[in-house]
Amino acid sequence: MTSNRLEQQLTFLVEADKLKNVLRRTSLTDGSRRENSAEHSWHLALAAMVLVEYSTVPVNLERVLRMLTVHDIIEIDAGDTFAYDKEGNTTKKDREQRAAERIFGLLPDEVGTGLRGLWEEFEANSTPDACFANAVDRIQPFLQNKADGGTWRIYKLSREEVLVRMDPIRTALPGIWPEVLKTINEFYAAGSST
Amino acid sequence: MTSNRLEQQLTFLVEADKLKNVLRRTSLTDGSRRENSAEHSWHLALAAMVLVEYSTVPVNLERVLRMLTVHDIIEIDAGDTFAYDKEGNTTKKDREQRAAERIFGLLPDEVGTGLRGLWEEFEANSTPDACFANAVDRIQPFLQNKADGGTWRIYKLSREEVLVRMDPIRTALPGIWPEVLKTINEFYAAGSST
Repeated sequence: MTSNRLEQQLTFLVEADKLKNVLRRTSLTDGSRRENSAEHSWHLALAAMVLVEYSTVPVNLERVLRMLTVHDIIEIDAGDTFAYDKEGNTTKKDREQRAAERIFGLLPDEVGTGLRGLWEEFEANSTPDACFANAVDRIQPFLQNKADGGTWRIYKLSREEVLVRMDPIRTALPGIWPEVLKTINEFYAAGSST
Repeated sequence: MTSNRLEQQLTFLVEADKLKNVLRRTSLTDGSRRENSAEHSWHLALAAMVLVEYSTVPVNLERVLRMLTVHDIIEIDAGDTFAYDKEGNTTKKDREQRAAERIFGLLPDEVGTGLRGLWEEFEANSTPDACFANAVDRIQPFLQNKADGGTWRIYKLSREEVLVRMDPIRTALPGIWPEVLKTINEFYAAGSST
């Protein structure tokens, strides 16, 4: 009774459940456990809704929300590559392209192509929607680090590494940047990572 | 350096992290653990994107995505009330209104009012956007139950209880309903809940 099209769509949605088992390096704000990529993606959507007023250029919030919802789904196959993992990042692109091929390929052609396009746009980080989405993707771990120094402390990241990682906030959300910079400066002034 | 407005917004986003610790009765499709309300909300956003073509009336996907992103946030205070828990549902409204007051109240007034309005619209389930969002909110646990009979089996739910719960799919997504009904009928024909 199920059409092939609907079956493909439901199969994709069942497969997507696996993103809830992909663990990130960041922890929940209360430190109780590591965060998974599905709940992280939800948090970004919420942050985009609440912070969109800080974007200096007009963005299409519907596209941003769709982009954030799919931006990590390739991690089901490719795993989460820690932003500061230099070695992991040399193979990231290949792993993620293969993952995109399989996962978006579960969907009817034009649906899968649409979602894959949003993911590629996020990765390329060159349109206003993608720049805003990437800035939001930095804000959420920033708030976790602000709460307890999380990954900055655990992985002994340098101030320079963190500044480079957070740079999309400076460019896309300059109204928020002073708060981010202040937190980074206070964290490193306290000598917490060295 | 932080404006009061930005501080309110960031405080809300940090508070929202707690939704990742609110457990639902449903389990992940692989049965490994119970699902939390944050990752559930993400899954609904994805399902809305993939299934919007089945809506019989036009819906505004941006509003639907925003609605689904905030629809469970009051559970941070009110907890997840199991859909089939008759006693819990008698106190649900009061608990959730108090939670909405506090949680949306963390935000600048007009932002909080906007998000609360979306949550109330979802609960009232009377606009096309809310009817579609509620149908999607039924589809995702349906897929989990389809995979392993999850809550239907564990809580010995009757076929009639499940049919009532799934009804928003019949009305908002009639093209998907035959698949849902077939699964329910097969599950109960096999005598799995009695």
